[in-house]
Amino acid sequence: MSENLTGAQLREQIRSGKWRGQTSGAAKGFVQANLVMMPREAAFDFLMFCVRNPKPCPVLDVLEAGETEPSIAPGADLRTDLPRYRVFRHGKFEKEVTDVQEYFDGNTVSFLLGCSFSFENAMLAKGLPVRNIEEGKNVSMYVTNRKCRPAGPFSAPLVVSMRPLTPADAVTAVQVTTRFHVTHGAPVHMGDPAAIGIDDIGRPEFGDPVEIREGEIPVFWACGVTSQLAATSAPLPLVITHSPGHMFVSDLTDEQMTIL
Amino acid sequence: MSENLTGAQLREQIRSGKWRGQTSGAAKGFVQANLVMMPREAAFDFLMFCVRNPKPCPVLDVLEAGETEPSIAPGADLRTDLPRYRVFRHGKFEKEVTDVQEYFDGNTVSFLLGCSFSFENAMLAKGLPVRNIEEGKNVSMYVTNRKCRPAGPFSAPLVVSMRPLTPADAVTAVQVTTRFHVTHGAPVHMGDPAAIGIDDIGRPEFGDPVEIREGEIPVFWACGVTSQLAATSAPLPLVITHSPGHMFVSDLTDEQMTIL
Repeated sequence: MSENLTGAQLREQIRSGKWRGQTSGAAKGFVQANLVMMPREAAFDFLMFCVRNPKPCPVLDVLEAGETEPSIAPGADLRTDLPRYRVFRHGKFEKEVTDVQEYFDGNTVSFLLGCSFSFENAMLAKGLPVRNIEEGKNVSMYVTNRKCRPAGPFSAPLVVSMRPLTPADAVTAVQVTTRFHVTHGAPVHMGDPAAIGIDDIGRPEFGDPVEIREGEIPVFWACGVTSQLAATSAPLPLVITHSPGHMFVSDLTDEQMTIL
Repeated sequence: MSENLTGAQLREQIRSGKWRGQTSGAAKGFVQANLVMMPREAAFDFLMFCVRNPKPCPVLDVLEAGETEPSIAPGADLRTDLPRYRVFRHGKFEKEVTDVQEYFDGNTVSFLLGCSFSFENAMLAKGLPVRNIEEGKNVSMYVTNRKCRPAGPFSAPLVVSMRPLTPADAVTAVQVTTRFHVTHGAPVHMGDPAAIGIDDIGRPEFGDPVEIREGEIPVFWACGVTSQLAATSAPLPLVITHSPGHMFVSDLTDEQMTIL
């Protein structure tokens, strides 16, 4: 079972080309991360953006220009160990690739940012339903009307992920996810989608719609996709990100990420 | 009473020259911060150092090059609103000044980092003794044998502050200070000073010695002085810091900084 792999074992499968799919549910219990790569000249402004907006963009690791081995996964190579990457030129999507060695050079800085998979595992362990997992779908993500604090040339609206819960389960979810402060932490909103600029909860901008049952309210968490919108908001010559759902899998465990 | 001033009122006294002393205990309940200023060329590496070492160097705010007004204190001016600054050239201390307008230009980036005054207030509110406050002294600080994770040209040993507590009070102190994760959070060590390379607990490298009473153990927290050692570990043409104990006082309240 792929969920029983360690982070290192899953990365080995990815690097050798045996694994090309999404990483949701795989190597369960190991922290997965959003990836952003960009030229060093823009790296201070982007790191400043992340530090200024820690809920959507929690920094798990920053690598020096040209470095490929993150501290949170010794032996890993960020150029080859994600199943799928996206390449952007001057802020525009160019293509998806399975290896970025030809794009990466000694001037490239890599950022790894926290991902909500960590707290989804903790919610499941507490007996809370995670609808997107129940339905075998990607989580529903929405662009809100809240603006992140900009930094240098980078700006973005806050993107959120949504999981439907009863009010009582939402209370427990606040408690559970608060512990995961470097993987988005507590929700940013609960209830009325229109209050944060979401017109149609049935049509997420990213991911899939999920059922909201009678008696449930939508609960919204800050989402790492915000970092992708920010990174591509400036006309940089090159930006590389993971492809949605195809994350970097580290050696850290979810529990190691908690504040309490 | 100076402790009843707001952050803005204390800054106004500092800017007008009425206040030149330490800020410990003043504007009680408002978050105080360590200041580091440096040329933009080194700012990415320094911010990376802080992100990689969040316990000693928790980032409260980063200002863009040339900016002087932090988001955590609208109306403030970092060039004039600290009671005392230190100027370093090529990593060497040059002098103390009360205003840095002549050193600051459009290329200067400012960092504000969390300070333990926040959790000291919370400890007092919980009824825990804070010996340095009881004795009217500066907190005891020590250079440990633990190395921070370096970044670019920046490296530093972990510096810690120490407060003596009974074991039972140390347990409560762990609970209280864990909430303050952006102002150093939970302790990094308790008990044997030699275990972290401290040869003589009676001779702190910075600050003053305090009494450790019968039945008490020394409890150690990561300390913002680490950031000063890091910033001056590279031969930058100019680095400006606050003078020890003479912090920047923000408009944030301590409670706004907590995770729970």
